[in-house]
Amino acid sequence: MSFVHIVVLAGGVGGARFLAGLRSAVPDARLTAVVNTGDDVTLHGLRICPDLDTVMYTLGGGIDPERGWGRAGESWTVRAELAAYGAEPTWFGLGDRDLATHLVRTRMLDAGYPLSQVTAALADRWQPGVELLPMTDQRVETHVVVADPATGRQQAVHFQEWWVRHRAEPEARAFVQVGVDAAKPAPGVAEAFAAADAVLLAPSNPVVSVGTILGVPGLREALLATPGRVVGVSPIVSGAVVRGMADRCLPVLGVEVSAEGVGRHYGARSAGGLLDAWLVHTGDAADVPAVAVRAVPLLMSSPEATAALARATLDAAVGGPLCPPPLAGSRRDPEERPDD
Amino acid sequence: MSFVHIVVLAGGVGGARFLAGLRSAVPDARLTAVVNTGDDVTLHGLRICPDLDTVMYTLGGGIDPERGWGRAGESWTVRAELAAYGAEPTWFGLGDRDLATHLVRTRMLDAGYPLSQVTAALADRWQPGVELLPMTDQRVETHVVVADPATGRQQAVHFQEWWVRHRAEPEARAFVQVGVDAAKPAPGVAEAFAAADAVLLAPSNPVVSVGTILGVPGLREALLATPGRVVGVSPIVSGAVVRGMADRCLPVLGVEVSAEGVGRHYGARSAGGLLDAWLVHTGDAADVPAVAVRAVPLLMSSPEATAALARATLDAAVGGPLCPPPLAGSRRDPEERPDD
Repeated sequence: MSFVHIVVLAGGVGGARFLAGLRSAVPDARLTAVVNTGDDVTLHGLRICPDLDTVMYTLGGGIDPERGWGRAGESWTVRAELAAYGAEPTWFGLGDRDLATHLVRTRMLDAGYPLSQVTAALADRWQPGVELLPMTDQRVETHVVVADPATGRQQAVHFQEWWVRHRAEPEARAFVQVGVDAAKPAPGVAEAFAAADAVLLAPSNPVVSVGTILGVPGLREALLATPGRVVGVSPIVSGAVVRGMADRCLPVLGVEVSAEGVGRHYGARSAGGLLDAWLVHTGDAADVPAVAVRAVPLLMSSPEATAALARATLDAAVGGPLCPPPLAGSRRDPEERPDD
Repeated sequence: MSFVHIVVLAGGVGGARFLAGLRSAVPDARLTAVVNTGDDVTLHGLRICPDLDTVMYTLGGGIDPERGWGRAGESWTVRAELAAYGAEPTWFGLGDRDLATHLVRTRMLDAGYPLSQVTAALADRWQPGVELLPMTDQRVETHVVVADPATGRQQAVHFQEWWVRHRAEPEARAFVQVGVDAAKPAPGVAEAFAAADAVLLAPSNPVVSVGTILGVPGLREALLATPGRVVGVSPIVSGAVVRGMADRCLPVLGVEVSAEGVGRHYGARSAGGLLDAWLVHTGDAADVPAVAVRAVPLLMSSPEATAALARATLDAAVGGPLCPPPLAGSRRDPEERPDD
């Protein structure tokens, strides 16, 4: 089967790399990325969309490959100056190059353009080769309910403050999507699902990336109406997160930090869940009822490995023989590649 | 006489340097600068106040001494990135360090703080040693009426576009203060004039700096009610501008580009004008009826020369013998200093 239109639900770094692999694997397919905007934040009067930018910079060749976010060759002059004025916050990594993106975005938003059109305008420079859609044009921001360390009283902080400033250390009690009730999928999202011959859940954070996207009213229903198969890629490898801090998020929802736990959390499409198929890392076991589980190398450790993962994901989207869950103790080299 | 409170009307570079000299000459006096904001402009969503910033950076030690405006050690990363997005305008010199000032200012203005309070907050970092007051808290912007080179039709462009982008080349037909009808002097301005024992007109542009300040309704009247003497410093030396492009502005008002022309334009306080005394450059002649004209070295070519000019200005504010206008042809070395 050759794919005509593939839709990917994506957060930041993991989603961006997965998309890069997919673009490499199927250069002729139309790719649509539906990107989490729950991480978005306004700082210093600038509207910042970390996940959209990470995807755009990664696919457009502007990303800092070491950090995985922000611009290559970045400088931090403005940030230092803001700190010299005592302008809070100082904990956010606001680079000079990156800042220009936020300036253009903020100016367009202030002029009344919706985020989807702003994103398209910014992407016109970067030519990511992927249609970039925010999950919604409305402002939906993830806040984290934590207990004040001094008083024990619960308070909600913006996701970025919890994630970046506090490195997800204060125990989260709940994640709240502020503004979600008034949100609807951005233009093109439902249409993309309706036209897709595969919908892929990137190995992004199941709670604050994929989960946030799915929280937009109507989006989950639009996804489930897709004629394509829905394939998820586990962000958990060998019981640990590959990147990010999903292990600080999953327990809040009572989800086990394992490929099986996340697979069961997403659930089988036939049982009201999301998945037709679920990819776990070579050697990981996952029993997800009514879902086709495949074990393939998940580590996106090189462009080639990432493209191979994308191909394996698409293989799962056309069905095919299932890999039986390996026996406990039969773990293979996590860097092993499928064609080796 | 020792001065307790001196008020200076100032534009950008010339006003800033004059204020630096004054601060050096009378370190114990209270100095208030009433600064032109007609050059202010919003670009890329940022509120930019060129004259306030030039004064603040100059007195705070952050100025680029070569350019006379903007920050020392400036970089231009954001500007290049904005250009890469095709974000107009690209002709404005928006440096990275400078930009942080505009970000803080814009954020505070958007939060509802008036410009005078924003300016005080910014100055808290720079400690200019001078009370910095915008001429008004209201938005008053100078626009320049020019003829479209293609059609000959008149159009108005923002002062910055005419000045920076077009280098004042299109012939100005008129200067318009957009918004001036609703403006009033910023808090503290009238009070400063009322308490001043001297009011000094810095050698700034008589039309688009000093003239713009005086155009704020009520400000001229408040100035003229000052108990102090009003002393002006000619921005024209030997019939030419020292810096800037006042020679492109004065003719629009029918004012001769000469120390005498500007002095007569300001006029004698006793005859409804502004001046008690008028300083022209050594060797320049100026006959300004009912105004005490003194010839002293006006070139602010070093901190010492600038301080000497400030002292000479204050000398004129306490009266004293007038220098007779020199005979034509008796021009002296323009770099000559008063104590030589």
